[in-house]
Amino acid sequence: MADQRAPHDLPDVSGLTIGILGGTGDQGKGLARRLAMAGHTVLIGSRDAARAAAAAESLGGDLPVSGADNAAVATRADVVIVAVPWDGHRATLESLRAELAGKIVVDCVNPLGFDKQGAYALPVEEGSAAQQAAAVLPDSRVVAAFHHVSAVLLLDPDVAEMDLDVLVLGDDREATDTVQALASRIPGMRGVYGGRLRNAHQIEALTANLISVNRRYKAHAGLRITDV
Amino acid sequence: MADQRAPHDLPDVSGLTIGILGGTGDQGKGLARRLAMAGHTVLIGSRDAARAAAAAESLGGDLPVSGADNAAVATRADVVIVAVPWDGHRATLESLRAELAGKIVVDCVNPLGFDKQGAYALPVEEGSAAQQAAAVLPDSRVVAAFHHVSAVLLLDPDVAEMDLDVLVLGDDREATDTVQALASRIPGMRGVYGGRLRNAHQIEALTANLISVNRRYKAHAGLRITDV
Repeated sequence: MADQRAPHDLPDVSGLTIGILGGTGDQGKGLARRLAMAGHTVLIGSRDAARAAAAAESLGGDLPVSGADNAAVATRADVVIVAVPWDGHRATLESLRAELAGKIVVDCVNPLGFDKQGAYALPVEEGSAAQQAAAVLPDSRVVAAFHHVSAVLLLDPDVAEMDLDVLVLGDDREATDTVQALASRIPGMRGVYGGRLRNAHQIEALTANLISVNRRYKAHAGLRITDV
Repeated sequence: MADQRAPHDLPDVSGLTIGILGGTGDQGKGLARRLAMAGHTVLIGSRDAARAAAAAESLGGDLPVSGADNAAVATRADVVIVAVPWDGHRATLESLRAELAGKIVVDCVNPLGFDKQGAYALPVEEGSAAQQAAAVLPDSRVVAAFHHVSAVLLLDPDVAEMDLDVLVLGDDREATDTVQALASRIPGMRGVYGGRLRNAHQIEALTANLISVNRRYKAHAGLRITDV
């Protein structure tokens, strides 16, 4: 892609505090690192505040990242990214319904199973993890994004720029614009609108295909959307 | 993408005759045009041989494209692309089981519904159109590919190069390599392995998201796979 501009006018999100539930995993830590490098105050959340603090510490003392338990993070952050394992997804969100009310909640969870042939999409009663979040959190503004971002690249100090677009899905235009702007804060990354929440399943499931791509090509594959 | 090389060694497919079932639709005609421009003999198929001949004629007399009924096309082609409407998918393939035996059959059908909110994925009993093709054609080598290629761009005489990768899925390595090589014959296009047939649903369904992208950005969006 020669042209890395944001695809349309997006709001200024530079002052937002970002919380990451399940931020002790590689995906959560990687997003925390890149968003903090972009200047955001980032709060890593975990069930265990001490583990969250250790994860924040592991990213180096120079970055504005700290750790706390999930409920404190959900309360203090402006935008909350959900990066918990799929099998704890519903229970974690149910336990934080009050704290997350009124907030933009960004679900990046991929419900996948693995067997000898690789990864495959798990069926989800609500259609997708993002739709499950929307069902569990009726008072939050649920957006789906950041599904295809390689944790390895996010955490690699030798990678200055990410080479991918983030598809951002949701039914609330102001919320999707905010998350697109947030994704676009990370060098090389663009947030591109990718449709309504009812079309989130295939975005989550596509991660299984990217895992196949990675195996075949020994790569950390990402997506670019052309002509946008 | 700076680097447009084929991602790994692929077979020489330059001599293959390509059949396109349902080749009178825009997607089929567009693929016929680009593959013929790349030097392939292309056979456009339709239930109605006269309509197939008219579609071939509409592409201009200079290209090696001709039309015939679907059964003749299936018999004469080396590789057969299925570009029929979803609602005729199963019946068309059932009627051509003998003609398609032993051949590489490339399914590019997207089972989508449309309503006021745009496009959405239809449920498919077998999991995906491609898996339905594999179930209906047990003696064929079914591959899924070409789902996200804009018919408008394929047919536009002002577009010299396509700016996208084609994800190629299947369980038969020789067949997926052949189809990757075929996609890579079209300037600007690369065929990239995208996983097994059981992960075809999300590739087909992703077309709904690309339709949303196209509406939002007034674009003809395609995908590039980065780091491959």
